[in-house]
Amino acid sequence: MSNLIEQAKKTAAYTAVDENFPAHAKVVGIGSGSTVVYVAERIGQLANKAEFVCIPTGFQSKNLIIDNGLNLGTIEQYPELDIAFDGADEVDTLLNLIKGGGACLFQEKLVAVASKKFIAVADFRKKSPQYLGTNWTQGVPIEVVPCAWVKVSADLKRMGAETVTLREGGKAKAGPVVTDNNNFLLDAHFGEIKNVSALHSEIKALVGVVETGLFVNMTDKVYYGNEDGSFECVQK
Amino acid sequence: MSNLIEQAKKTAAYTAVDENFPAHAKVVGIGSGSTVVYVAERIGQLANKAEFVCIPTGFQSKNLIIDNGLNLGTIEQYPELDIAFDGADEVDTLLNLIKGGGACLFQEKLVAVASKKFIAVADFRKKSPQYLGTNWTQGVPIEVVPCAWVKVSADLKRMGAETVTLREGGKAKAGPVVTDNNNFLLDAHFGEIKNVSALHSEIKALVGVVETGLFVNMTDKVYYGNEDGSFECVQK
Repeated sequence: MSNLIEQAKKTAAYTAVDENFPAHAKVVGIGSGSTVVYVAERIGQLANKAEFVCIPTGFQSKNLIIDNGLNLGTIEQYPELDIAFDGADEVDTLLNLIKGGGACLFQEKLVAVASKKFIAVADFRKKSPQYLGTNWTQGVPIEVVPCAWVKVSADLKRMGAETVTLREGGKAKAGPVVTDNNNFLLDAHFGEIKNVSALHSEIKALVGVVETGLFVNMTDKVYYGNEDGSFECVQK
Repeated sequence: MSNLIEQAKKTAAYTAVDENFPAHAKVVGIGSGSTVVYVAERIGQLANKAEFVCIPTGFQSKNLIIDNGLNLGTIEQYPELDIAFDGADEVDTLLNLIKGGGACLFQEKLVAVASKKFIAVADFRKKSPQYLGTNWTQGVPIEVVPCAWVKVSADLKRMGAETVTLREGGKAKAGPVVTDNNNFLLDAHFGEIKNVSALHSEIKALVGVVETGLFVNMTDKVYYGNEDGSFECVQK
């Protein structure tokens, strides 16, 4: 990636923190991804960093918190957050997101939904011209209970998915990816998603589905780093 | 329990099999519980038992299948079942069920929903005069992702639950029960449940909920063993 884009991502992330971090925040969610690295860096520069606790969305973000000298907490201790920052795999024009490319969608959504304010940061390639499923062509990530994956795959095809794939570990692990919650992941292709809310609800209602990677109506603002080094903030 | 009730449960279970077992069944679900023991026994007496495969809903029912000389299969191999038999913790007048007292609700529901026909067998104490939550006073069992239990408990209280308890292992295990799917269980008291479908849908939609113990509109018939030694069949 060019230095210009990298600089834009950094500017977007720093601005996201500077414009939104509550003065008296007590509990802050920090996700993961290449742009969130700069969010954590900026939060680590805050003078009052001893006064709040940071909740991770997975292993990588736990390390980000520790490496930036921030206080680490758990969502069990602090189930209500003041603000959370995370990346996204794709963002539509209504600020709905696809997440889960990194297999951490469950804890990411748990943190997002538990936060009063949720800010996404990403590079410009994550910005869909309109619908989800345009730029992100790997399908909707869906976390499922392992013994239910065949049945849920059939359900998703009945619902209209063109293809449904059990995510494999590739070179890193023979057989399926196992999530941090001991589940499997399906990637289901629905083409361009015009009604994100309806699709999410229908999938989540299936027996065997733990959570979907569709983040519906949860995001307050998105900060994008642009190709030319600039950044852009989109809000509802 | 009196011999009379035990005899009634056996008659109810045998009749459930005799009246419903499809002549050319290929895939059969078998659950667990004290009445289902007799279901498995009766299925084990069928002359054509080499010709179908039985899918268990958990460890106990797997043993029931093996002990009765039946072919054991998995729901991954056979995601569509011809018929399934299982117990219930409570049955309302519309044949909706509460299940999960034994912590196996997830696989029980997966098997039930995957079956063309679903038959419940139980003793008369499981028959609610009207609503779920009348006889079964331990609350609605809800399977949750472990790190989400505090957040989901708060959600359930906001939804109107009087109390929500993380199910503990008691003498058998310090700390919470861990299900066969590596999750925790909450027991949530909603009193008498007048709209089972709405309550189930609202709970299942929560981030962190894997499945509820409310089996809505899944049961074709219930066979009860009565106190006086007789049995009763209720169908929709």
